[in-house]
Amino acid sequence: MLPWGSRRGRTRRAMMVVRDGALDPLGATPDQAMTGLAFTLEEHHARLGKVVAEMSAAGLDALVLAAPEDLLYLTGFRSMDIFRLQALVITPGQEPLMVVRKVARSSFERTAWTRRVMTYADHEDPGAVLAAALAELSATVRRIGVPKRSPYFTPYVLEQAQAALAAEWVDATTVVSRHRWIKSPAELAYVRQACRYAEVALWAGVSACRPGRTENHVAAAMLAAMVEAGSETPAKNPLLGAGPRSALGHVSWEGRPIAAGDVVFLEPGACVRRYHAAVMRCAIVGPPPAEQERWARACRHAVNAAIAAMRPGVTAASVDRACREAILASGLGGLFHHRTGYSIGLGFSNWIEDLSLREGEDTPLEAGMVFHVVPFLSDGQQGVAVSEMALVTEDGAERLTTLPQELLAAPG
Amino acid sequence: MLPWGSRRGRTRRAMMVVRDGALDPLGATPDQAMTGLAFTLEEHHARLGKVVAEMSAAGLDALVLAAPEDLLYLTGFRSMDIFRLQALVITPGQEPLMVVRKVARSSFERTAWTRRVMTYADHEDPGAVLAAALAELSATVRRIGVPKRSPYFTPYVLEQAQAALAAEWVDATTVVSRHRWIKSPAELAYVRQACRYAEVALWAGVSACRPGRTENHVAAAMLAAMVEAGSETPAKNPLLGAGPRSALGHVSWEGRPIAAGDVVFLEPGACVRRYHAAVMRCAIVGPPPAEQERWARACRHAVNAAIAAMRPGVTAASVDRACREAILASGLGGLFHHRTGYSIGLGFSNWIEDLSLREGEDTPLEAGMVFHVVPFLSDGQQGVAVSEMALVTEDGAERLTTLPQELLAAPG
Repeated sequence: MLPWGSRRGRTRRAMMVVRDGALDPLGATPDQAMTGLAFTLEEHHARLGKVVAEMSAAGLDALVLAAPEDLLYLTGFRSMDIFRLQALVITPGQEPLMVVRKVARSSFERTAWTRRVMTYADHEDPGAVLAAALAELSATVRRIGVPKRSPYFTPYVLEQAQAALAAEWVDATTVVSRHRWIKSPAELAYVRQACRYAEVALWAGVSACRPGRTENHVAAAMLAAMVEAGSETPAKNPLLGAGPRSALGHVSWEGRPIAAGDVVFLEPGACVRRYHAAVMRCAIVGPPPAEQERWARACRHAVNAAIAAMRPGVTAASVDRACREAILASGLGGLFHHRTGYSIGLGFSNWIEDLSLREGEDTPLEAGMVFHVVPFLSDGQQGVAVSEMALVTEDGAERLTTLPQELLAAPG
Repeated sequence: MLPWGSRRGRTRRAMMVVRDGALDPLGATPDQAMTGLAFTLEEHHARLGKVVAEMSAAGLDALVLAAPEDLLYLTGFRSMDIFRLQALVITPGQEPLMVVRKVARSSFERTAWTRRVMTYADHEDPGAVLAAALAELSATVRRIGVPKRSPYFTPYVLEQAQAALAAEWVDATTVVSRHRWIKSPAELAYVRQACRYAEVALWAGVSACRPGRTENHVAAAMLAAMVEAGSETPAKNPLLGAGPRSALGHVSWEGRPIAAGDVVFLEPGACVRRYHAAVMRCAIVGPPPAEQERWARACRHAVNAAIAAMRPGVTAASVDRACREAILASGLGGLFHHRTGYSIGLGFSNWIEDLSLREGEDTPLEAGMVFHVVPFLSDGQQGVAVSEMALVTEDGAERLTTLPQELLAAPG
């Protein structure tokens, strides 16, 4: 059965489309390895089927998605033109309708397994075009889900949609993402490969940290190594800060010269089929400063304590607590300013998914979830981090990244 | 006078803060070249003064900004952690209030010249914290501007704010960005430098296009060359597609092998102090195919016609028309699917500003505007582009990028 259900006439037509080999990207696309789907059609059907079932349970007559990660997850569609409105409208019994910019039609046809598409020209208002599509649903839609917490669905677009369709508008930001939290074996294979590429980048970065070079040389080495090894473009380029800039964490290269005695904060993230892995370490140039060695030890204990606390059924908050208590036991609680970690996976401009290892988050872990566990300590003058990728298994957790958990000495 | 006006008690305190050398990033910051402001305090004051004046003209009692580009433009604040709420609340007579994640406080203190800040912890709801700050304005604020069309201000945050403060909520997405369209001499210096880095990347990409290598090798060469030359991390990594993938335009590297006869679409963008320049060319591997040479000629005529049509006072739509007519005259109108270009400048996840060279856009050009002019032709099987950066001058326009406007032959 097709995942969008069984309303008669429409289903028959949609089924013909999918069965027609010439349109099936797993069958006859001439260039499948480069433009085809990253998963089997069956996996895509199963994903869409779960979302349709959840819509039914939530009493939603229609669902609008706008995050490029959700669109890719369900249909395979991908384009790097993510800041013009892209939306997928799901109504049970119909093939989902994709709304994209006219120039993205070729990308849609080459990458998605679904076929219903509506395009807007650059002189048209994308929100008005989406609103017109939604207005046609007025006979059947009383309650509609929209991603009110997504950066890809603005208040302006919501206002246009609400003016076009009298319905109850409810937040449905996590209807798809909560399925994305749990990775299938095929997804995990991509994540594991991305871990290898992130590690390649990290080592290249450490090797490039030498007095006389700058942050830019380190960044160039990381990017080149990772991309030559096989990484696609990551949602974020490596974060990187030398000396006092290590204290900032969310910092990018700005040309600062590397000096003897510097701690250099490195966080490369790599990408395979838009699935990400990231890892944080600090390189040291010259003999390791005793204070920062102590911080690195605290981070190591904390990240390992967090991973040891993971298993199906425990809450995200309890993992955060394990990490936080390890840092408190090291006497460095005042240097830890944020959550313990986050679910990581698909990304276009951001690889962070909307499930955090943090105080108050009572979502229970499930096997197949993947977290980036990120203890980072900073006193505002200097920062140190040791992070790991971790997979929740049936009876615990597996560490997916394999680097030494120390400050890493740069050569020469 | 301070740019936020002259309400008595508060102004005096704020003025003391700015005059205190220890807090003035242009004075006493120990590491100004790396963490200080990219502009003089006077330029920042002038920008904020214009925004406050425009608020007054529009009858706005308060303005909430959320785009990281707007925050950087007014205060100097920058952090690469852009997808958690960051907001700047401007009320005349008070120093602007920055609302950021707790872990971003160090970045705020090191990069911004303003000092009022409120932080939220990771277990708090950022929208609720912003709403609480806005609720304190209820005695004076009747009409408030918010960025309803910004990806950084979600419907969920707007709903929280509206529940906290009874006021008229109006869209103010372009109150700051329309000033950002017009670049000052200092901003132009950064844009010109970014043009050089984008060109370095383009040449490195062309040189790397050889049979037996893959799209990834070309991407690695572009990134390494650009970043080693001095580029900061761009809002988008190079777009790149070989052979049939050139047809997609908004496409990134995916490992496709480069083959003899391929057209390889390249669009690197480089960044200086978060100001961007981008440029599109196509490399050819082997003898140039006659059809794609014809397309490149049409693009060249079109981009030059667009630049020739630019001068202060003409509308953005008239520049679009000049480009479009040149392509129609080449008999290739059916291959041109999008706008002629866009205003380019500051960016974190996107370097495109919200002024397009497109049908129906009657905004008149002004001296100091910078556009990326992007004729791109695609028949869905193959694509060709020739783009340029162009500055509107007092009496015309200056082309800022300097590459040959042909298909560029890859070596060997």
